[in-house]
Amino acid sequence: MTVLTDHTAAREAVDAGLRAAAARLPAPAARIAAYHFGWTDASGSPVQANSGKALRPLLTLLAAKAVGSEAGWRQAVPAAVAVEMVHNFSLIHDDIIDRDSLRRHRPTAWKVYGVNDAILVGDALHALAFEIIAESGGDRVPAGTSLLAQTVRALIEGQLADTRFESRDRVELAECVAMSEAKTASLMGCATALGALFGGGTPQQVDALRDFGYRLGLAFQHVDDLLGIWGDPAVTGKAVYSDLRNRKKSLPVTAALDSGHPDASELAAIYGATGQLTEAELRRAADLVEACGGRQASRRSAELLTEAATGSLSVEGLRAEAVEELTGLAASTVHRAN
Amino acid sequence: MTVLTDHTAAREAVDAGLRAAAARLPAPAARIAAYHFGWTDASGSPVQANSGKALRPLLTLLAAKAVGSEAGWRQAVPAAVAVEMVHNFSLIHDDIIDRDSLRRHRPTAWKVYGVNDAILVGDALHALAFEIIAESGGDRVPAGTSLLAQTVRALIEGQLADTRFESRDRVELAECVAMSEAKTASLMGCATALGALFGGGTPQQVDALRDFGYRLGLAFQHVDDLLGIWGDPAVTGKAVYSDLRNRKKSLPVTAALDSGHPDASELAAIYGATGQLTEAELRRAADLVEACGGRQASRRSAELLTEAATGSLSVEGLRAEAVEELTGLAASTVHRAN
Repeated sequence: MTVLTDHTAAREAVDAGLRAAAARLPAPAARIAAYHFGWTDASGSPVQANSGKALRPLLTLLAAKAVGSEAGWRQAVPAAVAVEMVHNFSLIHDDIIDRDSLRRHRPTAWKVYGVNDAILVGDALHALAFEIIAESGGDRVPAGTSLLAQTVRALIEGQLADTRFESRDRVELAECVAMSEAKTASLMGCATALGALFGGGTPQQVDALRDFGYRLGLAFQHVDDLLGIWGDPAVTGKAVYSDLRNRKKSLPVTAALDSGHPDASELAAIYGATGQLTEAELRRAADLVEACGGRQASRRSAELLTEAATGSLSVEGLRAEAVEELTGLAASTVHRAN
Repeated sequence: MTVLTDHTAAREAVDAGLRAAAARLPAPAARIAAYHFGWTDASGSPVQANSGKALRPLLTLLAAKAVGSEAGWRQAVPAAVAVEMVHNFSLIHDDIIDRDSLRRHRPTAWKVYGVNDAILVGDALHALAFEIIAESGGDRVPAGTSLLAQTVRALIEGQLADTRFESRDRVELAECVAMSEAKTASLMGCATALGALFGGGTPQQVDALRDFGYRLGLAFQHVDDLLGIWGDPAVTGKAVYSDLRNRKKSLPVTAALDSGHPDASELAAIYGATGQLTEAELRRAADLVEACGGRQASRRSAELLTEAATGSLSVEGLRAEAVEELTGLAASTVHRAN
């Protein structure tokens, strides 16, 4: 996905904001943040690493552009930076909790710097997000802060559910959808809502853009979960069949297990067994998810949600050019390969 | 210390605010928060446990009273609740990092619920603090949010320094003071500054009350570190000589090691040795801290800082009755037994 290459000014503004904010951190935390964001390697030397898609801050800035003037997106840069800070704080803590050792093709922060420092750096980015919103000034600060804090609560709710799913034999599709909404859709909805708020949108526009981000976020998670099974490891940076390997109860897997299809019990048996899965079992599990309709269900959900997201943009008074960019972003999200 | 028994209305307002805020958490997080705050036992049954001193929220409310009307402290209740939320989020994360298994005479949150859930509950309380400030409304939200976020950064800076001291042979007294300022004084200064801000104080009054809280906070840490060596285990809830047992480079220990006294090298040798210290070694270490002047230095610092804190209250326009309460609180802090 190359969504930001067409948005150089936005990308640069967010990058500058992130770097300026991270520079306020105490030295050991600044070092770890710079590594996590892909600005330096583990020895502290500057690198041009993959900093992630920066999809959320772009959503914020495009939402601001949609409700305001051509240059009005600049007012929403602090909100975009804050959203990206929250996203990265949650990634750092989730990697500790999930014991994930790779992110963006590199060892995770806790793997390089230890769990203790990674907890503290996550906390520091979390606080920075609120500091940046507060400093942006104006009468949008209370509403923006409140929305961001409620979103963090949703992220935590999602992560708590996710960790509990692992030890359960069965998870219903509705629970899995609710978890994905909390973990992914809520922050994308917050990203676009904050953009509309800081761009000076009407309450109707803020609501419409939140709906857009929320639906797109859930579509994004469906695609993410498809890539977690059928993604190209060279592109995703994850092992082949990685989600199956970890017996993750992702959206397509849950849809398959919950399908009532005769093959679902074989899939449940593979997920219920103990010990590492062989390559043959992984291939078989992927085929079973497909046979039970899980692959098709997530693909279809992603498409319907993207359509619904685009539909949210029919609210009055949005700038046509920005609507086109948001629609394009939604399309590229659902057709992405990583 | 029974500071809050004389302030029933304040204590009840803070308690109600904390409980209402915690009730918003997703169920598993609410359960852990209720345990941590001492409202329930590990099985979820309501108890009357020791919820901690609640010194910080009381400081906030007294600061508000000092700058406003008799009943004006009620305006600062959200700020008091937010400060207590931040304090408890940092306790939960610090207990994980320090591998502390007891707090307020009970097993710590991570000991009962595991590290993963404890990380997430800490994150949730952290976000709640900002949500409460944001919802309090009014034009003090940006300044209050900004101050609270900067304070979290200071807490993290202090905790990062503290964990690094453990692996160092030598820590200078100035470094140890700076760490204590970041870890303890900053949040107490934030507590009183927010109280003055939300109580409607002038900028001069806000500054003066921040100075009061900050100095009192550092005095508090000196006393805490004295109790960590010579405190009565039945009162403090910690093991006898607990800080020496953990070879903590606390303020009196650092003052002793940094004293140039001939006995300092024997103390350094005990701290530099590996393996568990015997009871005889612990007694000897405590005597050496005293012989090198560490006990006296911290006691004297606590007294001078408390005097200086009281001196900060000479700013114009504070209510005499509240000043007296703050002065009394300062005196009871420096003479407390736990």
